[in-house]
Amino acid sequence: MRKIALITTGGTIEKTYDEQTGELANRHSIVRRMLSELRLEETEVTVLELLSKDSLEMTEADRDRIVDAVRAAAAESGIVILHGTDTLARTGERLYESLPEPRVPIVLTGAMRPFEMKHSDALQNLTEAIFAAGVLPPGVYCAAHGRVLAFPGVQKDARRGTFVQNSPTNEISGSRR
Amino acid sequence: MRKIALITTGGTIEKTYDEQTGELANRHSIVRRMLSELRLEETEVTVLELLSKDSLEMTEADRDRIVDAVRAAAAESGIVILHGTDTLARTGERLYESLPEPRVPIVLTGAMRPFEMKHSDALQNLTEAIFAAGVLPPGVYCAAHGRVLAFPGVQKDARRGTFVQNSPTNEISGSRR
Amino acid sequence: MRKIALITTGGTIEKTYDEQTGELANRHSIVRRMLSELRLEETEVTVLELLSKDSLEMTEADRDRIVDAVRAAAAESGIVILHGTDTLARTGERLYESLPEPRVPIVLTGAMRPFEMKHSDALQNLTEAIFAAGVLPPGVYCAAHGRVLAFPGVQKDARRGTFVQNSPTNEISGSRR
Amino acid sequence: MRKIALITTGGTIEKTYDEQTGELANRHSIVRRMLSELRLEETEVTVLELLSKDSLEMTEADRDRIVDAVRAAAAESGIVILHGTDTLARTGERLYESLPEPRVPIVLTGAMRPFEMKHSDALQNLTEAIFAAGVLPPGVYCAAHGRVLAFPGVQKDARRGTFVQNSPTNEISGSRR
Repeated sequence: MRKIALITTGGTIEKTYDEQTGELANRHSIVRRMLSELRLEETEVTVLELLSKDSLEMTEADRDRIVDAVRAAAAESGIVILHGTDTLARTGERLYESLPEPRVPIVLTGAMRPFEMKHSDALQNLTEAIFAAGVLPPGVYCAAHGRVLAFPGVQKDARRGTFVQNSPTNEISGSRR
Repeated sequence: MRKIALITTGGTIEKTYDEQTGELANRHSIVRRMLSELRLEETEVTVLELLSKDSLEMTEADRDRIVDAVRAAAAESGIVILHGTDTLARTGERLYESLPEPRVPIVLTGAMRPFEMKHSDALQNLTEAIFAAGVLPPGVYCAAHGRVLAFPGVQKDARRGTFVQNSPTNEISGSRR
Repeated sequence: MRKIALITTGGTIEKTYDEQTGELANRHSIVRRMLSELRLEETEVTVLELLSKDSLEMTEADRDRIVDAVRAAAAESGIVILHGTDTLARTGERLYESLPEPRVPIVLTGAMRPFEMKHSDALQNLTEAIFAAGVLPPGVYCAAHGRVLAFPGVQKDARRGTFVQNSPTNEISGSRR
Repeated sequence: MRKIALITTGGTIEKTYDEQTGELANRHSIVRRMLSELRLEETEVTVLELLSKDSLEMTEADRDRIVDAVRAAAAESGIVILHGTDTLARTGERLYESLPEPRVPIVLTGAMRPFEMKHSDALQNLTEAIFAAGVLPPGVYCAAHGRVLAFPGVQKDARRGTFVQNSPTNEISGSRR
C-alpha cells in the first residue's frame, strides 16, 4: 500500500461559489470531493487541511507552516500539495531550499479553473500529482497539464496559463535521448 | 516538445452507445474527444487508430499488428496504447517479449467504465498513461487507477476491477524505502 | 406544496452499467440520483419503484399494475411515470382508456440515452415531466425533448429518436393562434 | 414547428470565468452552448443577444430595451428571457404593465449558479422556461426550480435562493382541486 500525504492550502483549485454573494473564494477544502471522483488502488491518501487561501494572500509565515507540515508528514511514499498557481513556484523554491535532501517526492499542483467549474483542469492535475508522488524519485516538483517540472527554476506562465521550466535540463523525461 | 504516439485498439474505454439498438460497442475511436478534455503543455499527441475491438475478440494477428505499430511509432518520447482491460495483460506480455530493449516507455491503459459514461475512469487512466509515457524510463507498463505496473507479471483482477502485479518487485516507486 | 407521485418502471433512462459483465440493464431504480440533481421548490416527489424492466419485456399484466398504481397514487397535483421509450405509447394508450376522467395530469417520460451516460436526455425529460405534471390540466401525456403530446395518438419515432403525435390537434400549445 | 424567441440579458446564468483574472462576469452570451445540451423537437429557438449584464447593474433604459425586444419578437409560440435573478422580478413586473394583453407566453428565467459551474440550475431552468413557453397560455411568467409563477407578485427569496409568489392564487396548477 502506497501512502500519500495530501496537504491542502487553498488556491483556485479549491475555490467554491457562494450563491448568496455570487463570489468565488477559498472557504474550506473540497479535496475529498475531488478524491471521490478518482479510483486509486493500493494508494492511501491522508488529507491534511492546512490553509484555505488565495495564494496571492499567502505570507512567509504560511510558507513556514507548509515546510513544517511537509517535514512532519509521515507518508512513506510521497507528498502532494494543493496550492494556488500564482505563488506556487515561490513555495516550491522555499521547499527546495528548506529540504535539500527530501526522503520522498514532494509534488505541488493547482488549477487554472476551479474544480467546481466544468472543464476544470483540477482533476487532471490532481491525478498527475498523485501519480507523480508515486513514481518520481525524491525531489520537489510541480505536476500539471501533462508534465512534471523539477525545482528549482519553475515559473508560472500567466499568459499561457501553465507552468514552465527556466532551466530546461530539469524537465523530467523517461526516454533515452 | 514531448511527442507521444497514442495507438487505439478499442476496449471498454472507447465503447459508444447506439440509441437505435441500445447497445454499447466498439465502433470507432473516440480518443480525440477524450484528449479535448485534457490540457497538455509541450506535449504533442499523434493518434493512430489501429483497431476498434472488444479485447476479448482480439486475435494473435491483431497483437502482431500492435507490435508492428509500436515498432513503427516515430514518437521520440513515449507510446500510449488504449486497450480493452480483459486481454490488456496478454498484449503487454507480448510487447515485453517482442521488444526486449524498447527505446521509450510503452504504456498500456484502458477503463472499467466507458468514457461516454459518467463516473468513468477513462480520463483518469488516459491522464496517467500520457503522464507515465513522459516520465518513466523505457519499458512496457500498465498505468491505471493511480499507479503503474511494469511487465512482465501484470494481471487483471476482475473481481476488484483493476490491475495487479504478480511480481511485486516490479511495481514502480519513487521513494527511498 | 405541490405533491408529485413518481412511478418508475425501468427503461433506458434507468439502465445501469455492470463493470464485471460490461452490460447495460435495468437492475433497480436510480431516479433518486436523478432527483438529487434537480432543484424543486414547493414540490414534494414521492417515488414508487414499481418495475425495473426494459419496456420491450413489459407484459400486459405489468401494464395492469401501472394502471393500478396510478389509480392508487395519492398525489394531489400530478403523476410522473418513467418508462422505456419502446412501448411507452402502448402504456399511455392503456392509461388513457382505463382512466377516462383522470383527476390530475399523468405524464409519461423516458430517455433515448441512459441517465448514467454523458449527454443523456434523462434529466431534461424528467425536468419536463415534473414541470408538466404541475401545470397541465388533467389528462394523459408524454413529455420529452421540449414538448408535450397528449394521448391518444402518441407514437415513438424510432428513426428520429423521439415521440410524435398522430393527431396534431392534440399537441399542447399555449399561444393564441 | 413551434417557434421560441430567446432573449438573453446576462445574469448569473451566463457568467463566465476568466482564468487570467479569476473573475466571474457577464462577458457575452453562452446560451447557444446551453441549447446544444438540450434536445428540442419541433421547436425552433431564435436567439437575440440583447444585453450581457449583472442584473444589479440593469437600468430602466435597459428594461425599456427588453420590453421593445419582446414587442418586436416575431415568435409565434412563446418568448423566453434569460435574466439575472436579483432584478428579474422588476423586469417581469415592467413587462406585465407594458404588455397587458400579450399574444404569447413570456417566460423569464435565470440561475442561482452559473451554467459554467457543476451542479448549476441553469439547464433545468432553461428547460422549464422553454417548455413553459410552449404550453402556457399568454401571460408573463417566471419559471424555475420545478414550477412557474405568474406576474404580478413574483419575488426573489434570496435566503432560499429561489422565487416565490406573493399572491398564491397566481401560481399555475393543472390539477382539479
